[in-house]
Amino acid sequence: MYYDDFSVGMRFDGTPAVITEEAIIAFAKQFDPQYYHVDPVAARRSEFGGLIASGFHTLNLCFRQFFDLNLWPNAVVASPGMSDVSWKAPLRPGDMLTAAAEVIELRPSRSKPDRGVIVMRHTAANQTGREILAVVCLHLVRRRPAAQG
Amino acid sequence: MYYDDFSVGMRFDGTPAVITEEAIIAFAKQFDPQYYHVDPVAARRSEFGGLIASGFHTLNLCFRQFFDLNLWPNAVVASPGMSDVSWKAPLRPGDMLTAAAEVIELRPSRSKPDRGVIVMRHTAANQTGREILAVVCLHLVRRRPAAQG
Repeated sequence: MYYDDFSVGMRFDGTPAVITEEAIIAFAKQFDPQYYHVDPVAARRSEFGGLIASGFHTLNLCFRQFFDLNLWPNAVVASPGMSDVSWKAPLRPGDMLTAAAEVIELRPSRSKPDRGVIVMRHTAANQTGREILAVVCLHLVRRRPAAQG
Repeated sequence: MYYDDFSVGMRFDGTPAVITEEAIIAFAKQFDPQYYHVDPVAARRSEFGGLIASGFHTLNLCFRQFFDLNLWPNAVVASPGMSDVSWKAPLRPGDMLTAAAEVIELRPSRSKPDRGVIVMRHTAANQTGREILAVVCLHLVRRRPAAQG
């Protein structure tokens, strides 16, 4: 798909995946070694009463599911940024995460006519359907060659 | 440190670290397998002319340096979210990343007097001093026990 193939309201759903305690700890040891992400015993005295995934891990998993949809292999340029990252509820060992993304705005580039920004609201829900993460992400994507100028 | 120990303008600097091509590819294969993050040859035809780190990798490395400062081992509660994530320039193999964080706002909790939100602007620069990433992150941190009420 190219920029021109998207419209506001289009929605894409990822393939649900279960998170293990092992994966939570491995990620956290590498990037976010706070006690409630790496130590299941110490985590009991945290605000969450047990081990939870790093918010960065949840964010990465959400986008991994999105990238796996492979929507724009020939058109993707980069992402200039994200906003409104909200960690709403914890992701715990054994939880199942399902990502979704919805197009909320389309912004053709003013300076470069061969591309535009697709603004998407990305979310991740757990197995109860509760939204645990929400993010607005900008995706810079090329226009369909025939659609230029 | 506790919430009460912070004031607007305080700045914290991380320990610089060099990123390898191997690490860039390993992370991307796990979380962001777009061709310009996993394939050094195909990456040459990308907007960046070569392999670059996933923006999520850069983000994680920036916060890893911050967490390594271990500012609030007894006081941290969680992070409710981030905003204004801006990927300004690519991180390439061999680049050195240095993270920094500056307190930009302090918000005592209205509902829970034992804690407050420390708003920080986190940045990562490369070896030329160029800012390649900027993020505003909220940190929910406990107040010093004596300071409550």
